[in-house]
Amino acid sequence: MTTHAYGAHAADKPLEALTIQRRAPGPRDVQIDIAYCGVCHSDLHTVRSEWQGTLYPCVPGHEIVGHVSAVGSEVTGFKVGDTVGVGCMVDSCQSCAACEKGLEQYCDNGFTATYNSATPDPPGHTLGGYSQRIVVDEGFVLKVHHPADQLAAVAPLLCAGITTYSPLRHWKVGPGQKVGIVGIGGLGHMGIKLAHAMGARVVAFTTSESKKQDAHALGADEVVVSRNREEMKAHTGSFDFILDTVAASHDLDAYTALLKRDGTLCLVGVPEDPHPSPNVGPLIFRRRAIAGSLIGGIKETQEMLDFCAEHGIVSEIEMIRMQQIDDAYERMLRSDVKYRFVIDMASLDG
Amino acid sequence: MTTHAYGAHAADKPLEALTIQRRAPGPRDVQIDIAYCGVCHSDLHTVRSEWQGTLYPCVPGHEIVGHVSAVGSEVTGFKVGDTVGVGCMVDSCQSCAACEKGLEQYCDNGFTATYNSATPDPPGHTLGGYSQRIVVDEGFVLKVHHPADQLAAVAPLLCAGITTYSPLRHWKVGPGQKVGIVGIGGLGHMGIKLAHAMGARVVAFTTSESKKQDAHALGADEVVVSRNREEMKAHTGSFDFILDTVAASHDLDAYTALLKRDGTLCLVGVPEDPHPSPNVGPLIFRRRAIAGSLIGGIKETQEMLDFCAEHGIVSEIEMIRMQQIDDAYERMLRSDVKYRFVIDMASLDG
Repeated sequence: MTTHAYGAHAADKPLEALTIQRRAPGPRDVQIDIAYCGVCHSDLHTVRSEWQGTLYPCVPGHEIVGHVSAVGSEVTGFKVGDTVGVGCMVDSCQSCAACEKGLEQYCDNGFTATYNSATPDPPGHTLGGYSQRIVVDEGFVLKVHHPADQLAAVAPLLCAGITTYSPLRHWKVGPGQKVGIVGIGGLGHMGIKLAHAMGARVVAFTTSESKKQDAHALGADEVVVSRNREEMKAHTGSFDFILDTVAASHDLDAYTALLKRDGTLCLVGVPEDPHPSPNVGPLIFRRRAIAGSLIGGIKETQEMLDFCAEHGIVSEIEMIRMQQIDDAYERMLRSDVKYRFVIDMASLDG
Repeated sequence: MTTHAYGAHAADKPLEALTIQRRAPGPRDVQIDIAYCGVCHSDLHTVRSEWQGTLYPCVPGHEIVGHVSAVGSEVTGFKVGDTVGVGCMVDSCQSCAACEKGLEQYCDNGFTATYNSATPDPPGHTLGGYSQRIVVDEGFVLKVHHPADQLAAVAPLLCAGITTYSPLRHWKVGPGQKVGIVGIGGLGHMGIKLAHAMGARVVAFTTSESKKQDAHALGADEVVVSRNREEMKAHTGSFDFILDTVAASHDLDAYTALLKRDGTLCLVGVPEDPHPSPNVGPLIFRRRAIAGSLIGGIKETQEMLDFCAEHGIVSEIEMIRMQQIDDAYERMLRSDVKYRFVIDMASLDG
């Protein structure tokens, strides 16, 4: 099935209009006409092969919202016309201990990513959401219950939303707790909204004084400029949990020191250059931990979408046309976006 | 109360016989005639002021076993003649959240260490177990139920034992689990014995091929020479928990990679030079954690001593006379001890 898309033929080439093939829906497949696709930092890293191993042509995009346009004969959960989402995964082994627990993101055999993973479909690797249409096993399709006029802003929930929701849930964030969110960007702004909706007292950490007002508007009870040592020190030993969304190399000790006994600093970004080696003392003397977390499982992603629909939570977005993607990447690298670009996929053929 | 002891007058002076003052037992105090005192690396670091801030004269020693020789009028738990132990702490605030939970080692106001902590007693700082006698609040005195001929080998349980027991319990090590113990020294050899007695499958990691046989004798089901990449790789993703007892700077990634999803690498030693910065990828891609742990609370220390008595667990020791302490320190620095020196305190006046 010929499908219009946007992608790159090589790491040093700009993205351009492409024609790709999608498989015809099999018995368990859902065919989705894509309405919107969010723009994640991973898209940029992959299309430019900054993490190595990118397969070309590369069509990025894993924050997909659209409408079902066909279903296979055995599909029970979806019908034509349903509003649905697809996130970072389109398949997994479904038989390992992780998959059996609904933790497909930790699949022992490696999940199939929405783009740049091996697949029997042409051209042999998966192609993502910067496209008209995608065909996905129904086990990896999510239901979207938000109002129709919010769908563009729902798209980033599929990656930025679940990446922050999952650790907040895993470490049992809730009322009576004090939670830190480090970084107010695509991930961090979702972390603030979600932790606030979960009932925690939320403190946002930023290097930019200018983001203070925005952070309060997003739901932060307090905003700390992390360069200000006195402001930081005032929070020593007071956090139950800190979610660190900053992928750039930075000093982790500044945050471990702010945790209570048994508190966890959870990282969700892999820095290009390593963080300075964290000091072991603050871990030992209060039994603190530094942990990591990766997106979330399918069941949990559905739970997150339902939670967001119930609490009226969407991402803060700036809509772009498909042809503006290279400019959007450059602006993203300068953190010049509040807080997520979303592509209006109708523009693809515009 | 004049008491013979052994300590140093300055960081660059050898230890020598000293006469110190102990307070007369107050209403809640237990006076203990010390029979044996284990030799911990912390003793050496402190007496040589390698961690800075050592107060002189310095009398080290926090692995104390002895017999009660007097009790205060309000003491209910102990009587003259009881066999008892004292570990790393002799007091804490008793009113913070940590103390109320029996986690005095994490006291928000800082516990009073057995040596080198502020105290109203002369000379203004606490003096440890390299001495004839010690006077301690009954809340920090432990009961010892081991047979009389094992008391010397019980002493190291008070620090090396609880430092390994507490994290094994906190992270719920037990039957059906695979647990790693990194380093086969004073702490590690206790970790092997304890994890084995808790019913886990125990894998010991060592840099010395020569320690293999010993590790098996201590209770390890398997011994891995950590320099052997192939041996290490065979254990990828298979451990529920790894207790890392090595205080020297080393590569943590080699161990985080061996953890299952949601596994924890727990550090109990603070390296002089930082470890190489751990890679964030292995944490994120399996939701693993690097944590720390400090000794254990008083209630848990008693639980550990009772567990060891029940399972016939003591430390492997080499007995020394008090006058051999400087030589023992030098041998300890060369890892030339299997696995803990214990001072026969009767030698003090020998």
